[in-house]
Amino acid sequence: MVKKLIEEITKKNAPVVAGLDPMLDYVPEGIKKEAFEKYGENLEGAAEAIWQFNKGIIDAIYDLVPAVKPQIAMYEQFGIPGMEVFSRTVSYCKEKGLVVIGDVKRGDIGSTSAAYATGHIGKVKIGNSFCTAFDEDFITVNPYLGSDGINPFLDVCKEEDKGIFILVKTSNPSSGEFQDKLVDGVPLYELVARKVAEWGAQCMDGTYSNVGCVIGATYPEMGRTLRKLLPNNYILVPGYGAQGGTAKDLKEYFNADGLGAIVNSSRGIIAAYKQEKYSKFGEENYADASRQAVLDMIEDINSAK
Amino acid sequence: MVKKLIEEITKKNAPVVAGLDPMLDYVPEGIKKEAFEKYGENLEGAAEAIWQFNKGIIDAIYDLVPAVKPQIAMYEQFGIPGMEVFSRTVSYCKEKGLVVIGDVKRGDIGSTSAAYATGHIGKVKIGNSFCTAFDEDFITVNPYLGSDGINPFLDVCKEEDKGIFILVKTSNPSSGEFQDKLVDGVPLYELVARKVAEWGAQCMDGTYSNVGCVIGATYPEMGRTLRKLLPNNYILVPGYGAQGGTAKDLKEYFNADGLGAIVNSSRGIIAAYKQEKYSKFGEENYADASRQAVLDMIEDINSAK
Repeated sequence: MVKKLIEEITKKNAPVVAGLDPMLDYVPEGIKKEAFEKYGENLEGAAEAIWQFNKGIIDAIYDLVPAVKPQIAMYEQFGIPGMEVFSRTVSYCKEKGLVVIGDVKRGDIGSTSAAYATGHIGKVKIGNSFCTAFDEDFITVNPYLGSDGINPFLDVCKEEDKGIFILVKTSNPSSGEFQDKLVDGVPLYELVARKVAEWGAQCMDGTYSNVGCVIGATYPEMGRTLRKLLPNNYILVPGYGAQGGTAKDLKEYFNADGLGAIVNSSRGIIAAYKQEKYSKFGEENYADASRQAVLDMIEDINSAK
Repeated sequence: MVKKLIEEITKKNAPVVAGLDPMLDYVPEGIKKEAFEKYGENLEGAAEAIWQFNKGIIDAIYDLVPAVKPQIAMYEQFGIPGMEVFSRTVSYCKEKGLVVIGDVKRGDIGSTSAAYATGHIGKVKIGNSFCTAFDEDFITVNPYLGSDGINPFLDVCKEEDKGIFILVKTSNPSSGEFQDKLVDGVPLYELVARKVAEWGAQCMDGTYSNVGCVIGATYPEMGRTLRKLLPNNYILVPGYGAQGGTAKDLKEYFNADGLGAIVNSSRGIIAAYKQEKYSKFGEENYADASRQAVLDMIEDINSAK
């Protein structure tokens, strides 16, 4: 699957992923009004609003970006109707040729991780049939439970040619509280990274592994160290834009081949129309604003590689 | 909410939680056959099978146990129909007066954790309405992202009188890979526990806090240390029974007041009929086998307190 991701990145010359993390505050009033009139101010209404919002953005940017990253929490908060829209968003993006990274941050003990793995990137056996549930291409995974929580995801990656991104160093301000703690002089995130290298070696797909990692754009010095430790693992980089990471910071995350990293922006793309820079588009043309924000982001990131 | 949990534990004299982690392999053939005939060997058929299976067990044990802990992965693997059964299971258990601990192990950066918190234990604002989505009483939470990933859960606990159990030391064999690493001579799980004490102090509900922790039954010596560090925090203890933890090991997890811990069994209860000990019940009386397993477990745990 990472081969496909690289192909799409190369074809579109865009090491960029659009984070589809719709919050109701981002959705233009007109879309909300229509959705609430149809379904009411309830879970169904909210789900319809974020679906219409997503669809507008996907239609406007699918030819520019190689991948999208829907954050499942933003759908899960709207219960079953929200989960339906998550699922519909995954399918719609795949129809448009996009690689879909489900930002689910799941992780549990063995048998439970196996259920998450089959449900999100694999096939679940029901009677004599094999069925897919959410069917993303990649998902994000939390490593706190250790190898036996990760192995079931690796098994599915191998069987199905899918991929995972394991949290190593997250972009948030208090990520250091546990992740930076020194274990015999080595920060915990580096220990996790070393395991990612081991796990990744089992799942090679060409030059890169189907097992990547998450390292926040907000910690470029750590990006530099980890890039060296993980030469064959793709880095999914959150924290660009709204969270404070700049293109200059991102240089560290790429390999000499110009590959090895894909930078996410969520709010900066999907709520672009709320920024002064794109306010000329107006609320009703929010998707055009997103398209312009993607074009600007691609230029910015490519200037830094 | 922990007050309510303690009331139910005391009333039923049972510091026990039944893990509703239905795997299709546990579901009696007759139930599967009927479900597949009705819906086919697909996600709907699987969801119907686990719903009927759950319902049988809940009806058979709700008067014995104070709480249930549905493991969301086992539902999520069946996509939207599975999530609907998760939601229906939560509602049905609450109707039966059970405290529901959603074993979801969510955790992310601030705004995303906020979405998980509102979706699972809070209310989400939609237009001028406040709606509930999954509406569990407690959920489990992963601490790897640090305080700003946890704070949104604390906010909702305070507002809604709900609770969380934060992963400290999990029951699986490779939990030590990261959790046991020494930071200045102190294992990481103990650093997490110290933070749990701080977070918990913000959410007191009587003598105990609405913020508890997860410590596996398979590590009793760590249970002893952590019990002292966390005198006011409930410990949710997985790993009893099928995973190897015994009642003798569990003594360490309780306080002198006989409170402070609630022990989970999943497979040992819901798939009891598959054990030789309960095989006399037969597959069709699987729920009666579960009831007997609960009675035996309560006696075993109470003997160890």
